[in-house]
Amino acid sequence: MRICVLGGDGYCGWATALYLSQKGHSVAIVDSFVRRQWDRELRVDTLTPIRAMDERLAAWKRRSGKTIEMLRGDITNYEFLSSTIQSFHPDAVVHFAEQCSAPYSMIDCEHAVDTQVNNVVGTLNLLFAMREFAPDCHLVKLGTMGEYGTPNIDIEEGYITIEHNGRKDTLPFPKQPGSFYHLSKVHDSHNIYFACRIWGIRATDLNQGVVYGNVTNEVSEDEALVNRFSYDEVFGTVLNRFCAQAAIGHPLTVYGKGGQTRGYLDLRDTVRCIEIACLNPAKPGECRVFNQFTEHFTVLQLAHLVRDAGEKMGLNVEIDHLPDPRVELEEHYYNPRHTKLVELGLQPHFLSESLLDSLMNIAMKYRDRIDPALFLPRVAWRKARNQRLVVHAHQPSTEVHSEAPNSVREKADLQPLDV
Amino acid sequence: MRICVLGGDGYCGWATALYLSQKGHSVAIVDSFVRRQWDRELRVDTLTPIRAMDERLAAWKRRSGKTIEMLRGDITNYEFLSSTIQSFHPDAVVHFAEQCSAPYSMIDCEHAVDTQVNNVVGTLNLLFAMREFAPDCHLVKLGTMGEYGTPNIDIEEGYITIEHNGRKDTLPFPKQPGSFYHLSKVHDSHNIYFACRIWGIRATDLNQGVVYGNVTNEVSEDEALVNRFSYDEVFGTVLNRFCAQAAIGHPLTVYGKGGQTRGYLDLRDTVRCIEIACLNPAKPGECRVFNQFTEHFTVLQLAHLVRDAGEKMGLNVEIDHLPDPRVELEEHYYNPRHTKLVELGLQPHFLSESLLDSLMNIAMKYRDRIDPALFLPRVAWRKARNQRLVVHAHQPSTEVHSEAPNSVREKADLQPLDV
Repeated sequence: MRICVLGGDGYCGWATALYLSQKGHSVAIVDSFVRRQWDRELRVDTLTPIRAMDERLAAWKRRSGKTIEMLRGDITNYEFLSSTIQSFHPDAVVHFAEQCSAPYSMIDCEHAVDTQVNNVVGTLNLLFAMREFAPDCHLVKLGTMGEYGTPNIDIEEGYITIEHNGRKDTLPFPKQPGSFYHLSKVHDSHNIYFACRIWGIRATDLNQGVVYGNVTNEVSEDEALVNRFSYDEVFGTVLNRFCAQAAIGHPLTVYGKGGQTRGYLDLRDTVRCIEIACLNPAKPGECRVFNQFTEHFTVLQLAHLVRDAGEKMGLNVEIDHLPDPRVELEEHYYNPRHTKLVELGLQPHFLSESLLDSLMNIAMKYRDRIDPALFLPRVAWRKARNQRLVVHAHQPSTEVHSEAPNSVREKADLQPLDV
Repeated sequence: MRICVLGGDGYCGWATALYLSQKGHSVAIVDSFVRRQWDRELRVDTLTPIRAMDERLAAWKRRSGKTIEMLRGDITNYEFLSSTIQSFHPDAVVHFAEQCSAPYSMIDCEHAVDTQVNNVVGTLNLLFAMREFAPDCHLVKLGTMGEYGTPNIDIEEGYITIEHNGRKDTLPFPKQPGSFYHLSKVHDSHNIYFACRIWGIRATDLNQGVVYGNVTNEVSEDEALVNRFSYDEVFGTVLNRFCAQAAIGHPLTVYGKGGQTRGYLDLRDTVRCIEIACLNPAKPGECRVFNQFTEHFTVLQLAHLVRDAGEKMGLNVEIDHLPDPRVELEEHYYNPRHTKLVELGLQPHFLSESLLDSLMNIAMKYRDRIDPALFLPRVAWRKARNQRLVVHAHQPSTEVHSEAPNSVREKADLQPLDV
């Protein structure tokens, strides 16, 4: 198949592009590289030293003999996006090209607006470009399990049949997202569902859980193919952050009680789910929703798993409970259905000791690159304006202005949040 | 109370500002006048010759002795909006300041994007400005009944209690909006609900039906206070368009079978509902939803009412059924609850012969200003790009480029839509 991967320079996008290329699909990456720019803005960095795109693609060509096309541009520019769709004429478009961090969207008004405008406009442009220039193309859109929030009933895959006052209808599952980022995905979902109804677009909305793992078969083939590993409080997902903390003897930062339950999946399952969706396209006019995760854990369970993995390596791992900077239930019912992808052939990689060992090994390998000032939450949901500038341990303080502590060991100072 | 009316130059906003001022509230209008600019962009105009804002406010001062403050600016500019909130320190903000036309949002990608960005960013800015500078202020936000779509179950006021697999929760009512404009209001609703949860904002989300009527006690006091009357296919609501059509002997343009049922209310009830909401504010953290309409009608019922009113005046009124340019059910179940405003004291003005007579009289008074080229639908939901330029009957064709017919009588040419 001809598959466009929007956001193919990102964590999931890069692994997906390589996997699809390896599987023999013709792949084009579309990316503006704004994700790297956001790292620079926040003075954070991937733990693993990722390479420039041309170096990445040259290494892939050298290792696999396969060429991935690269189209640089911003999908919020309709002219760019529509000409890309016209020139590549994809069978499927996999859309990862969104601002993907909840804390980023909660920094202040500007970041909330930027997140929603970036994400909503990109997806709107894509829907129009598909309607105008690729009406039979299949949209595979990355949503998030966070769209649903944590209702006190079972979560279905996208739609729920409601009986009410003696009548019945199947309607979109009610959404209670927990950040301006998660809200942007809910907005997208509504826009996509509408475009399917009026234009007959084919769409699969993948409500993905939290992805862990850094390595796929493809990524591990060459040092130049290394994948992003974010561990900071803004872009890092919780398991990455815990591993980085364990590697340098920093306490694991559990927010609140740690009973927050979320769906998780291995990066190797993400790439497989994307291919499954592409190979089994939605019907014209169908807006299909899959809940894309394989297991669920509480945050505290993950902390215990990382502690165990660390102790096996001789590390002494403490667990700290910080005041929760988010507004979320710290204990709640959580039972989302996730059978559709399995019915289409997904064979899950469940979270294992060996996966945790592999993550810990990456964290240990690059431990000199870990900046502990990036661990502590500095974005509080309850505040409308957060001062996100931090002093980097390895940068002189003249460069930035902040009340942040200089040392990770000054624990009393390390909770600047009024949550 | 001190009340800010965002979008106070518009149809509902202007009538509301005058009503609240008459009732003794301190009122400030905030407006960028972009609504007048959209008229110019589409080469449409209000049937009633509305005056410039300074003339309007001077007339109001002369007639009532009361002063309404005017703050000119765009609420998508956070600096402007937040400084306005800080300087006026309102008890309530009534937010009408959005692009309000479904067809406008469906013209093409640019108009869809502009609509969603304008509406979503304005509301986001307002939420942040309230959190930062007026945390106890009450947001009274205009949503639309169109957020719900036409589900096959009774529509509740904002939330529905769902029993599912033996568990129960009360969740936001599922939304199935029917245009990119209606979608923007759904996005707003989700953003507002979230802001209430995390920041304790007080909000009332008014899911308003289609408003009819042009006159309130205040508006009718002076010719310079005259209210907007849009009758074109983009900004005109159906009853206005039918009256203008009847006035010049043009067939009433019913889309499809005309069984589309919607909630309606009189403009005099709109202004009263707004005051009721302001005087009975939501509690901190509460996102209260009222369905703001008083009756529901099918489009065909309204056509029959206008025909009857016209015939009483000696007019010969035909009814045409055009192919529906929208994607909507032409016949459907519709039973939305609307009791909360009545419980707070609303005494509805139901649609009456005298109201229809008053609308017909306005249409007759200004019939020379009616441009029949503006009646016919030129925005098709199923197309991704609509050519909206039309030839005005009273403008030479050199000014604009279009395949539109020059005369309203060339009926065969008058259905340019491929729907």
